[in-house]
Amino acid sequence: MADEQWLIVAAEPLQKFASELLAAGGAPKEIADLVARHLVDANLCGHDSHGVLRVPTYIDLRDKGQIVPEARPAVVKETGAIAVLDGKRGYGYTAMDEAVRRASAMAKRFGIGGVAVRNCGHIGRLGGWVEQLARDGLVGEVTVGALGPGVGHAPPFGGARRTLSTNPWALGVPSKSHPPIVVDFATTSVAEGKLKFARAKKTSLPEGWIVDSQGKPSTNVEDFYGGGMLLPFGGHKGSGLSIFASLLGGLSGEGGNGKLGGTMVVAFDPSVFGDADAYLTAVDGAIASLKAVPPAEGVKEVLLPGEPESRSREQRKRDGIPLPAETWRELRALAGAENVPIPDIATPQR
Amino acid sequence: MADEQWLIVAAEPLQKFASELLAAGGAPKEIADLVARHLVDANLCGHDSHGVLRVPTYIDLRDKGQIVPEARPAVVKETGAIAVLDGKRGYGYTAMDEAVRRASAMAKRFGIGGVAVRNCGHIGRLGGWVEQLARDGLVGEVTVGALGPGVGHAPPFGGARRTLSTNPWALGVPSKSHPPIVVDFATTSVAEGKLKFARAKKTSLPEGWIVDSQGKPSTNVEDFYGGGMLLPFGGHKGSGLSIFASLLGGLSGEGGNGKLGGTMVVAFDPSVFGDADAYLTAVDGAIASLKAVPPAEGVKEVLLPGEPESRSREQRKRDGIPLPAETWRELRALAGAENVPIPDIATPQR
Repeated sequence: MADEQWLIVAAEPLQKFASELLAAGGAPKEIADLVARHLVDANLCGHDSHGVLRVPTYIDLRDKGQIVPEARPAVVKETGAIAVLDGKRGYGYTAMDEAVRRASAMAKRFGIGGVAVRNCGHIGRLGGWVEQLARDGLVGEVTVGALGPGVGHAPPFGGARRTLSTNPWALGVPSKSHPPIVVDFATTSVAEGKLKFARAKKTSLPEGWIVDSQGKPSTNVEDFYGGGMLLPFGGHKGSGLSIFASLLGGLSGEGGNGKLGGTMVVAFDPSVFGDADAYLTAVDGAIASLKAVPPAEGVKEVLLPGEPESRSREQRKRDGIPLPAETWRELRALAGAENVPIPDIATPQR
Repeated sequence: MADEQWLIVAAEPLQKFASELLAAGGAPKEIADLVARHLVDANLCGHDSHGVLRVPTYIDLRDKGQIVPEARPAVVKETGAIAVLDGKRGYGYTAMDEAVRRASAMAKRFGIGGVAVRNCGHIGRLGGWVEQLARDGLVGEVTVGALGPGVGHAPPFGGARRTLSTNPWALGVPSKSHPPIVVDFATTSVAEGKLKFARAKKTSLPEGWIVDSQGKPSTNVEDFYGGGMLLPFGGHKGSGLSIFASLLGGLSGEGGNGKLGGTMVVAFDPSVFGDADAYLTAVDGAIASLKAVPPAEGVKEVLLPGEPESRSREQRKRDGIPLPAETWRELRALAGAENVPIPDIATPQR
């Protein structure tokens, strides 16, 4: 990417700008702020594919009627330790923020809480939601799934038809004196963004990422764009996690006609299971055991799940977020179209 | 294995024999029956490594004081929608049967239920427990985890010290007119049994299964037995699932001194989330979508998670369970030592 220009933007004014753009695109201020906060946090974490570059896409989806920016989730059902929400095709962030709050409240009352969300929309970087639970002192699981003929880019294990979406899992655990453990992954071998990148650079792919339209292994990225598929990671295991995320999400009532899916949030409160302080101390001990593991040959350091993200967040909060000039151009163009003043916050990367 | 003799034994008398052996080994009849039922069901499912060959090992562990055959789980805590059980170093099956019953009852009342078990012992094939939940009409998750210096055979991703056990996950979903979907896997690349087999046969291993004691990739099985390690499956993703299973299990209160672990059962009741019949019908639809996927080149048929096991169960219930002559010899030897009559139930495989 040495041929591409980069700019540096500080997180706070970038978030303000993103929020103004989203508000100009019809989102009430608190929804615009919520979405902007999650997008910029994804940039801070180093997951730029889930960052502010999404803003123009979201506005485009609004224009097409696929996102209703002012929609707030409806409570379909709430009973015992569970709830079902309907995202009403609003920003998925709006529905998820509500789902996480309710799961948290239920976990504190019953020890465990589960909230299923239908019609949820894109919820950004999943890790952010289990981090929100971890800040409440809770262990969390968030899954998103969609399954059906022609859905997503992945076949089930052994198959040759697109049937499964990226169907990600996020798992989070708070600790006493460290950032939370955050496991966050797509059940596909890689994100599609990496295929786009390989296509642009005309490089061949590692084995095991894709198959062609007949389900035959390939390292030629054009086979993917010619009707091929992105494989689940880890063979039948990743495929099983992907299928289960879809069926678990289906408890939201989303689906029918051979399709099934939805989002599920599960929260566990260590202080209801037992002594929370003892638990968090034990998690610290487990972290110490993991960090004490000598690195394998060729590896610099054993990193905990979530550690790359928390380090990136620290560094980018301090030094600013690098954005491709192209992303910044798109945000400025959108600002022009929506009559939002363009702030002078981007400086060329040294 | 053409050089090894095989015998065929019908499931029902094998289960009776296994139960008598376990009872002679100190287990009360209902515990012996429970353990024998799970062991023989693992044989029926084709998972012989979790089958009756375990009986002599269990009796051996009893002799060493590591299994207390008559122990029953104690309820450490029960509140809201969760419980914590202490397996009291009994048969893990005893504790798990209780955990699954309680999780099921809580899910029916609160929509979701979570039961953590400490000091659980070996619980056999995990899939059997989510099948038990599925028979109750429930979606289920069962995880077992253990983490600590020198624990298990696997390093965390990028590391070179044994720190993680096999830390398996099982996920189950009932359907309207099919056997349940059962995802059941170890978070290590393979079970250690496959390494034993390769060692006996002096064959080299596929890449990605093991590393040597320095964390360097190897295909020589002797590197594993010389202090090497079994890798987590799927790189950082499988490693993350393994670590999370340990930390989630730690809600049971098991652990300390850098170790953490335990067993967690989570059950979800579709009839509390919404219309159970509509959900089960939607799962049937999802199954139809998956089975309609054309197989990839070189694959005969797309199999659902759990389908190989349900097919094996059907076939072996009909045709009998094939046992290596060696396993049968060990069971007879144990019967001799424990004064249990040896039934005439094994016939040489045709």
